[in-house]
Amino acid sequence: MSSYSDQQSSISENNRSRVLQYLYHNGICSRAQIAKAIGLTPAAITKITAKLLAQDVIEETGDMEGDKNRRSIGLNLNCAKYHIVGVKFARSLVQIAVFDLKCNRIFMTDLPTVNEEHIPETVECIRNTVRRLIKDDSSIVAVGMAVPGPYLKDEGRTALVSSMQGWRQINFIKEFSDAFDVPVFVEQDARAGALAQFLFNPELSKGSLAYYLLGEGIGLGIIDNGAIYYGERGTATEIGHVSIDVNGKPCDCGNVGCLERYCSANAIHERLNANPGIVPGCESMTHAQACSALFAKAGTGDETAMTLVRDIARYIGYGAVTIINAFNPTCIVLGDIVAQAGQPLLDEVERVVLDRTIPEIGRNTRITLSTLPTDATVTGAAAVAITNFLEHPSMFFDVA
Amino acid sequence: MSSYSDQQSSISENNRSRVLQYLYHNGICSRAQIAKAIGLTPAAITKITAKLLAQDVIEETGDMEGDKNRRSIGLNLNCAKYHIVGVKFARSLVQIAVFDLKCNRIFMTDLPTVNEEHIPETVECIRNTVRRLIKDDSSIVAVGMAVPGPYLKDEGRTALVSSMQGWRQINFIKEFSDAFDVPVFVEQDARAGALAQFLFNPELSKGSLAYYLLGEGIGLGIIDNGAIYYGERGTATEIGHVSIDVNGKPCDCGNVGCLERYCSANAIHERLNANPGIVPGCESMTHAQACSALFAKAGTGDETAMTLVRDIARYIGYGAVTIINAFNPTCIVLGDIVAQAGQPLLDEVERVVLDRTIPEIGRNTRITLSTLPTDATVTGAAAVAITNFLEHPSMFFDVA
Repeated sequence: MSSYSDQQSSISENNRSRVLQYLYHNGICSRAQIAKAIGLTPAAITKITAKLLAQDVIEETGDMEGDKNRRSIGLNLNCAKYHIVGVKFARSLVQIAVFDLKCNRIFMTDLPTVNEEHIPETVECIRNTVRRLIKDDSSIVAVGMAVPGPYLKDEGRTALVSSMQGWRQINFIKEFSDAFDVPVFVEQDARAGALAQFLFNPELSKGSLAYYLLGEGIGLGIIDNGAIYYGERGTATEIGHVSIDVNGKPCDCGNVGCLERYCSANAIHERLNANPGIVPGCESMTHAQACSALFAKAGTGDETAMTLVRDIARYIGYGAVTIINAFNPTCIVLGDIVAQAGQPLLDEVERVVLDRTIPEIGRNTRITLSTLPTDATVTGAAAVAITNFLEHPSMFFDVA
Repeated sequence: MSSYSDQQSSISENNRSRVLQYLYHNGICSRAQIAKAIGLTPAAITKITAKLLAQDVIEETGDMEGDKNRRSIGLNLNCAKYHIVGVKFARSLVQIAVFDLKCNRIFMTDLPTVNEEHIPETVECIRNTVRRLIKDDSSIVAVGMAVPGPYLKDEGRTALVSSMQGWRQINFIKEFSDAFDVPVFVEQDARAGALAQFLFNPELSKGSLAYYLLGEGIGLGIIDNGAIYYGERGTATEIGHVSIDVNGKPCDCGNVGCLERYCSANAIHERLNANPGIVPGCESMTHAQACSALFAKAGTGDETAMTLVRDIARYIGYGAVTIINAFNPTCIVLGDIVAQAGQPLLDEVERVVLDRTIPEIGRNTRITLSTLPTDATVTGAAAVAITNFLEHPSMFFDVA
């Protein structure tokens, strides 16, 4: 292809993507509304939408009220027609779900708890499960995967997974990119979660959005003015390995006093195991189960459980203070296993933030629990693929 | 102006800016080279350069060797013709310098040490000094100012200045924006320093650049893929107030264990005052003088001085580890007062980074001392104005 026609096709793809994104975010619109909003001529919009209609990507919805009472035909993106598989890799936890383009969940399954020794078997099991889903549902057009950070995005590897180093051996791009008949997209877990908030929670999509993942690891994803913050190799925003105490607990990463040593689901489980009275039988539970049991007990008013929850929340608050000083986000969304502690957690995090930040900065940072119906990282895995669907339509259907 | 002609003039300004930036970064070029490099037609370049020639912003340099041995005329940006004033506000320290567009320093002066009680007088003194400079040098076209963070960029105020709260009362935009006959630009100090590295040290301008300001405060400026990282209100990258010990020394900002309580010039001076044997007479010195004296003594091989320098460097190293985990920069440049400790400081910072980061991430982060001939923040104050000169030429000369 000549450089000129290269450029032309990239402009066409960009315009097509802008039409899809506009319809995605605004629902039913007329051609005239789209033309006005994205600054293309009506003729260009007619040409682009004709191709999208021919491919059944969009549909006409009949007459709608237009400008100056002129009637015009509504167009709608067929969001229910396309399904997306989202795969969340935590450390011991793998979840697989199917969504439509609007984040409505159609299916979800948890794989058996992963042991350090059986990671290759888990990879094989994921491949088989996803293949079966694709075979049974021809609407599936893409797979998104959310993997623990620090994720080296160009290499396809996680540089370190505290407490389960076996995941380091897995090259996600190599293991999965050609495993299915549909494209696969991989993203660091907290960034995927941030993308889910960005896509499905429009009031959070302005300014600088931070998704604070409180799960088997502690992670952070930042979307600043619409752009994900990666750094040089994709290992920026690794808040879980930012030290809160240079003389504190040692971590697998080489650092000392890493935030995730104090408030991840694993760290909580460790503390429960050391104090077996709080959640009886916790040593045979998964990290998520142990945390759930603790939060349930705190919910009944048990003082010991409540004190532990508040103590953990204080550490999460210290992390939030660091996030504010390092990234000055508009909003911090708390999600994943530990966020299920709910309002008492949020209250304590807010207290620490007001106590330890400059008032006019801390007070102006909104802190909230994730309100997505499904876990933000599973949803985020799908959001990664949906973002690619909207940005690179020619990967998904014939546009010629 | 109609929206169409608005758009046209913004496109013209953008093209003009691209021509200036190309000439700025590449030196003498032919019209054909510029056209090819920035993707405009030769006719458009002829039109733009004709106006710039008429205004004497650029000049013809005579014949040069063109493509395929065709001879063509070289064009050159008149970098020596335009002078810029850079003003650095530290806490007790104000420096004013004049540079040409290529960062050659023409003049520099230190104002008398600032006391908390005399900040309004200092503001007046800066205004008078800069006015005199502009009166005496008609080449001066802009003033850039670098001020301590956390700087609320839309409000023009610093939200907090540890140890000298009086600066909080100063609204830099209000005090200075109309004070001179030339435009004034204000930026947070470490961001200005990052901009100086970006502009005057081309090998650092790729990827993600971090300027780590080790002065009366500890600051950080990040330029990620050409874009400064601000966050919601401009108070991102406040590394000086990131805690390295949640049970550590309290700070004016409300936080506990803030990095700058351990390794700023002020913190070093405090330690010297508490151990008067190391630098005799230090209690009557400025922070910068006390630090210089300590580094000089360490340079003579004095073991006590060397131990203190190494101890401070270890804290700066902890900060570098946090910068790597939070921002994953390609390169960290150390600058300002404390960086004058030189190689022993750099060695210790590198040792801490290798010890406390994931090897493949830490090893791949370049750490270096600023090599700019003048302090990076003073230079950076000018760089802020130079960036605006190149991006918004119509503010500086007649383009009609």
